[in-house]
Amino acid sequence: MGRAAREAADAMRTAPPEKRSGAIRAIARHIRHRAIEILAANAQDVAGATNLVDRLLLNEERLEAMARAVEEIADLPDPVGKVIEQWTRPNGLEISRIRTPIGVIGMIYESRPNVTADAAAICLRSGNAVILRSGSDALRSSLAIGTAISDALAEAGLPEGSVQVVSTADRDAVGLMLEGLSGAIDLIIPRGGKALVERVQREARVPVLGHLEGVCHTYVHASADPDMAAEVVRNAKMRRVSVCGSTETLLVDRDAAPKLLPQIADALDGCELRGDEAARAIVPMAEASEDDWHAEYLEPILAVKTVADVDDAVAHIRRYGTGHTEAIVAEDGAAAERFLDRVDSAIVLWNASTQFADGGEFGFGAEIGIATGKLHARGPVGPEQLTTFKYQVRGNGQIRP
Amino acid sequence: MGRAAREAADAMRTAPPEKRSGAIRAIARHIRHRAIEILAANAQDVAGATNLVDRLLLNEERLEAMARAVEEIADLPDPVGKVIEQWTRPNGLEISRIRTPIGVIGMIYESRPNVTADAAAICLRSGNAVILRSGSDALRSSLAIGTAISDALAEAGLPEGSVQVVSTADRDAVGLMLEGLSGAIDLIIPRGGKALVERVQREARVPVLGHLEGVCHTYVHASADPDMAAEVVRNAKMRRVSVCGSTETLLVDRDAAPKLLPQIADALDGCELRGDEAARAIVPMAEASEDDWHAEYLEPILAVKTVADVDDAVAHIRRYGTGHTEAIVAEDGAAAERFLDRVDSAIVLWNASTQFADGGEFGFGAEIGIATGKLHARGPVGPEQLTTFKYQVRGNGQIRP
Repeated sequence: MGRAAREAADAMRTAPPEKRSGAIRAIARHIRHRAIEILAANAQDVAGATNLVDRLLLNEERLEAMARAVEEIADLPDPVGKVIEQWTRPNGLEISRIRTPIGVIGMIYESRPNVTADAAAICLRSGNAVILRSGSDALRSSLAIGTAISDALAEAGLPEGSVQVVSTADRDAVGLMLEGLSGAIDLIIPRGGKALVERVQREARVPVLGHLEGVCHTYVHASADPDMAAEVVRNAKMRRVSVCGSTETLLVDRDAAPKLLPQIADALDGCELRGDEAARAIVPMAEASEDDWHAEYLEPILAVKTVADVDDAVAHIRRYGTGHTEAIVAEDGAAAERFLDRVDSAIVLWNASTQFADGGEFGFGAEIGIATGKLHARGPVGPEQLTTFKYQVRGNGQIRP
Repeated sequence: MGRAAREAADAMRTAPPEKRSGAIRAIARHIRHRAIEILAANAQDVAGATNLVDRLLLNEERLEAMARAVEEIADLPDPVGKVIEQWTRPNGLEISRIRTPIGVIGMIYESRPNVTADAAAICLRSGNAVILRSGSDALRSSLAIGTAISDALAEAGLPEGSVQVVSTADRDAVGLMLEGLSGAIDLIIPRGGKALVERVQREARVPVLGHLEGVCHTYVHASADPDMAAEVVRNAKMRRVSVCGSTETLLVDRDAAPKLLPQIADALDGCELRGDEAARAIVPMAEASEDDWHAEYLEPILAVKTVADVDDAVAHIRRYGTGHTEAIVAEDGAAAERFLDRVDSAIVLWNASTQFADGGEFGFGAEIGIATGKLHARGPVGPEQLTTFKYQVRGNGQIRP
């Protein structure tokens, strides 16, 4: 598998962009073509599943959505060969920094069968080969989708090794991939729960682009417009509570809390609040414990803490945040800029919902996840983030003194 | 140490650029001020040294060169806060991607005491805190330089934790750093021989920016100007044989070899040649074995292989190269562009010496090494490559539909 992927990566890297786009479109077509087999395989997975049935479930509608998502990726600009920077040295050497694929990516994921199609399309868009290791719950579905992908690659004239779905469900496959399949894998991307990502980060012998936790904060500054604060906080927490960019802790300036907090609490109808003493003196709510400041609830629960000022909010985020996404709601531009400067998270927003933490919302077209590490890529990971670069240097006989 | 570094990293990140520049200049000043102690400590290291004495040796001249190199880094532009990209979304959100420091860098290196000053200055320039672990051979010298650095930090009003030199010479220090000092280290940079880098890449639990091997190739195409070919190959191999960017294998188009190889061989006076059969039929030289195609000699030895054409040269490089630096000498632009496109190395040159593989020659001002991996940074690693980025998003109350 490793050898096949490595050879395919060379073919992918040098294939013209249209060929990659054609292959991605063919994937969508062949997924539709094999709908009956894929849904049958999925029915077996669902029958054998112990939990997460909804994430696992495919139906005609979801299959069509999967195919359309793949077609959208086919329409994205191809990042390979794009010039990032270009400059000329005093000795006349012309240096360009251009995007190139990373090579072979290993994806390890859990129950969502659509990840198989998504990941294949994004990796092809960025010129990479990929080895996909689906969770055992969704294995039959993933293999059926993998067959459609193989058909598409053959039709497009790209090596089958460009996208390979690991057929065994046993845990050794993960172990081998984490070892890098003896040098064949350049980057591992885990996609799933905290336990999976932690295992991958602990055991991987190759670089990992991982999404760990999103303990996101929204800080309402004393200068905030009360209506905007209420609406932004409601959206940041309640639009979808299960996404990594949902706000888990609300920070409010203590002095302005009596003015701001009641309206925010009203807007959070249906959300359980857990607050510190000052917050609870203003709005009746449960008492927050130390654990609540660390919690990624992914549920309609919000921790509420009062702070003295911007620096106090930044200090709380530094201590309890996970470097994912934080927002400030403020009319005071100086306070907002201080927050944008001081908070060291992948995404820092001013007067906007933390739920904008998404590759699509950033204009990346598609994303394979949000990276919470600091190296290589940070934040939404789209096709461009799945590339590296090389330097092309053009001279006319220069030698180094 | 980890805690001190983490706290210092926050202070460094938010310090104004002038403060960082001032601290770097102060380092140079205090190195000069403590010249006597540093040279005395170095004399003890040299007395106790078993090998590498020249790399280890400091004298007044080398100390002054070290101080001047540090001052040059103080004059480099500060990358922190620089806007990389900026765009506005249809919903009005203004997104900027800006450079931020990585945080805490761990450097593990061998006998050159000047690395202590260099690495400290480059890490400060990029807004990072650094933990330096010197080779035991150079430990006394490094600690003496570290004292000068501490004086400089105190004078500049930056936390002493910004630059820490590990005082113990025992190997546990390396082990603890490779474990990441329980979350305190964001990136490990090994600098030294292959054994050190391999151990770090094998054992590190945190991302590694490593320089492994430079098996660099220069390919002389049939269309090459014979004089240029001879001069570029001579410089690529012989200017300095011990640097990682020196050419280790010469590839020559077989049909043009009778015309090109003799003049190249003459230019390589003082260099041992080891060739394949076709090469040896043109110029008398030793016979190359399979090992020679893999060899990073770092000596006046050059492997010589004849190839059928550009694609054959690319195939040889794909098989034996280490992804460091390769060059083509050609007048035929189409052949050159094919080589620049197909060779997947950090640096690919056309009509220039592979010895230009250097951060200074690229205009980075200084470098901490050449990265041979593909993630985060590739090629010369200067201050900019020691940064990451974050997204700042400015809105006016946007919520996500």
